[in-house]
Amino acid sequence: MTTQELLIKAKAAKSKLGNIKAADIDCALLMMADQLIENTDAILAANALDVEAAKGNISDVMIDRLMLSAERISGMAQGIREVAALPSPLGRVLKHHERPDGLVIERVSVALGVVAIIYESRPNVTSDAAALALKSGNVCVLRCGKEAHGSAGAIVEALRAGLKKAGLDEDMVLLIEDTTRQSANELMTADGYVDLLIPRGGKGLISAIVKNATVPCIQTGTGICHIYVDSSADLDMALDIVENAKCSRPSVCNAEEVLVVAESVARDFLPRLKQRLVDEREVNPVELRLDEKAARIIDGTPAGEQDFDTEFLDYILAVKIVKDVNEAVAHINAHSTGHSEAIITQDEQAADIFTRGIDSSSVYVNASTRFTDGGEFGLGCEMGISTQKLHARGPMGLEELNTYKYIIKGSGNIR
Amino acid sequence: MTTQELLIKAKAAKSKLGNIKAADIDCALLMMADQLIENTDAILAANALDVEAAKGNISDVMIDRLMLSAERISGMAQGIREVAALPSPLGRVLKHHERPDGLVIERVSVALGVVAIIYESRPNVTSDAAALALKSGNVCVLRCGKEAHGSAGAIVEALRAGLKKAGLDEDMVLLIEDTTRQSANELMTADGYVDLLIPRGGKGLISAIVKNATVPCIQTGTGICHIYVDSSADLDMALDIVENAKCSRPSVCNAEEVLVVAESVARDFLPRLKQRLVDEREVNPVELRLDEKAARIIDGTPAGEQDFDTEFLDYILAVKIVKDVNEAVAHINAHSTGHSEAIITQDEQAADIFTRGIDSSSVYVNASTRFTDGGEFGLGCEMGISTQKLHARGPMGLEELNTYKYIIKGSGNIR
Repeated sequence: MTTQELLIKAKAAKSKLGNIKAADIDCALLMMADQLIENTDAILAANALDVEAAKGNISDVMIDRLMLSAERISGMAQGIREVAALPSPLGRVLKHHERPDGLVIERVSVALGVVAIIYESRPNVTSDAAALALKSGNVCVLRCGKEAHGSAGAIVEALRAGLKKAGLDEDMVLLIEDTTRQSANELMTADGYVDLLIPRGGKGLISAIVKNATVPCIQTGTGICHIYVDSSADLDMALDIVENAKCSRPSVCNAEEVLVVAESVARDFLPRLKQRLVDEREVNPVELRLDEKAARIIDGTPAGEQDFDTEFLDYILAVKIVKDVNEAVAHINAHSTGHSEAIITQDEQAADIFTRGIDSSSVYVNASTRFTDGGEFGLGCEMGISTQKLHARGPMGLEELNTYKYIIKGSGNIR
Repeated sequence: MTTQELLIKAKAAKSKLGNIKAADIDCALLMMADQLIENTDAILAANALDVEAAKGNISDVMIDRLMLSAERISGMAQGIREVAALPSPLGRVLKHHERPDGLVIERVSVALGVVAIIYESRPNVTSDAAALALKSGNVCVLRCGKEAHGSAGAIVEALRAGLKKAGLDEDMVLLIEDTTRQSANELMTADGYVDLLIPRGGKGLISAIVKNATVPCIQTGTGICHIYVDSSADLDMALDIVENAKCSRPSVCNAEEVLVVAESVARDFLPRLKQRLVDEREVNPVELRLDEKAARIIDGTPAGEQDFDTEFLDYILAVKIVKDVNEAVAHINAHSTGHSEAIITQDEQAADIFTRGIDSSSVYVNASTRFTDGGEFGLGCEMGISTQKLHARGPMGLEELNTYKYIIKGSGNIR
């Protein structure tokens, strides 16, 4: 099936969305979870072929992300059941206005329509994304990276079997066959077929989307996150937070990449930082990339200009010294990707300047940037973390996979 | 000043937005209104030159829209004062979540940053758009059509004088000097400078934006609006609503362009329609463009295929006969621009099928599409009517000119 043929099927499935009730969707999700378990052997067989083909072509970390087990599949099924248990975002009355002539105007949440997701080689994203798109009432079109395509195919087959058992249109979940760049390009320009495109991938994919997409998109997931240690910071707290934000899981988008330090505490703080992040860490010591002023205080790699605009996703931290909170805000707004930034301070005024001035999705006072996550923020789940300002900013939950329409009821009202 | 130089000024003004309070903005708006009045003579002089230069080049209707008077300027000032009196959309706490470890996560509404508006030759849009953008905390970049550019320049000068008197940065309101296509193209691709671009113009501008824009945009204002007269409709009500939606102001985007009629009532309804919209109207009789089935019942122009995909903005109505509400929904979803559609029916089930099935911003039961308007919907004002689904759908008020950020306050919390 060509991508265009698949999009026509998606549009046909979308035309029936209006008749599906939230309870039907929850029932289908439970059946989809059951079918995943039931098809464990087929999924593992397809996955084994993917892993075999990928060996030598991608890193061991990527192989690990690609590989499934009965336990992982059971986890995926459990994930779907948890999504089914969340409240439906559909049909919320967001505004209610009654005119003097009796006309009643309501703003009501509804599905977007067809949600397409481009993702890379993590097979579990297949079921996660499909469950979230479906729970929020949408038809889901998946475009998976080539390494995981066989696994994704087996997973989608199981999900579609679940939809069928529940009496819903199987074409609510569709997987694109073509894994070349062409199918990504076709999705980006599928005007009239795709209501929202979510790219989940690296910088290259995101910038191709910004440049070429004519369908509505939400950019997700690049995080050059900053922590600023203010002149009034509790330095013990600062050390704990910086270590957590940098080292607890450096490969994720909410990890810290740049540390900004107020001049007045740099001389006290930087030697303790080096001790904690470098000297005391036998496994995975952090490489510090220091600006000129920081390099006068501690040893480390001299920072190149690019180091303040790089998402390392590794045990590397760029360090910059600034005069005060205002200079910190200016530096961060000029170099951040708009994801998550934190200030460590005991001074309420500095905290206020920082939270007002920083133009990012999530602005922290005295806490680690690692909390930026749909689950941690109380949204129940997450489709990705938006770094744009329109529609959704920060973690995207189910409500962000809806739009609204106005439903207006009258009895012959004219203007 | 080049467009690029102007955008740098806008970005500098944006960097100070965090420090401005809602009360400062209201005060500035009142001063801006006063300055408009005070500069009436200068604005009228600039406008007279615009009108002189435009004569012979644009239609009389356009000349009328272009022409200002002391009364119209006073109306613009009053418009600004009304915006000042609205509640500020800034600083609303949209979500509040507290974690067991004491971390408090709030989703708070904030300005988008720099809002750019491309508009054509209505000088009053200059002050309307600037007031709405400013009230919602944004820096406003205006790009006016060449016919009204002199008038817009004089208006912006007055508005900036008001900002200065209020102690705010004059560069909160900026008018682009270049009125060629180049400046529109520069705005569309001003990544990092423009947080939202709102094109207010015809089909050509909107489709150029969809194709070329790399900055976030909201498409506004094209309305191919449908009214469907169901088999169970009260035909007297249907006549009143159709006449209102078509004839009360045909040049606006919420006017009806296509009438869809259920087969079973067509033989009763169409002769009455022709009587009301054609025969009884001495001034501006409506031209009916009829599909084959309708043409068998009444006289009129045979509809070409394009007539069901055209925003006439004139006393023209395309008429199509369908079997039932399901066929009506399918036709409308295939041909509408997603603006406003109505069903006239006494049957609750048909109304339900219609409101669930129609994929447009505003779906009416037994009322005229002409109500789609920020003021009528209780939003207090309107920047335009979005026909897209992301961020804002339907009339855009002040809240839709905001985004949000998460502000998270802890006491050393790590994950």
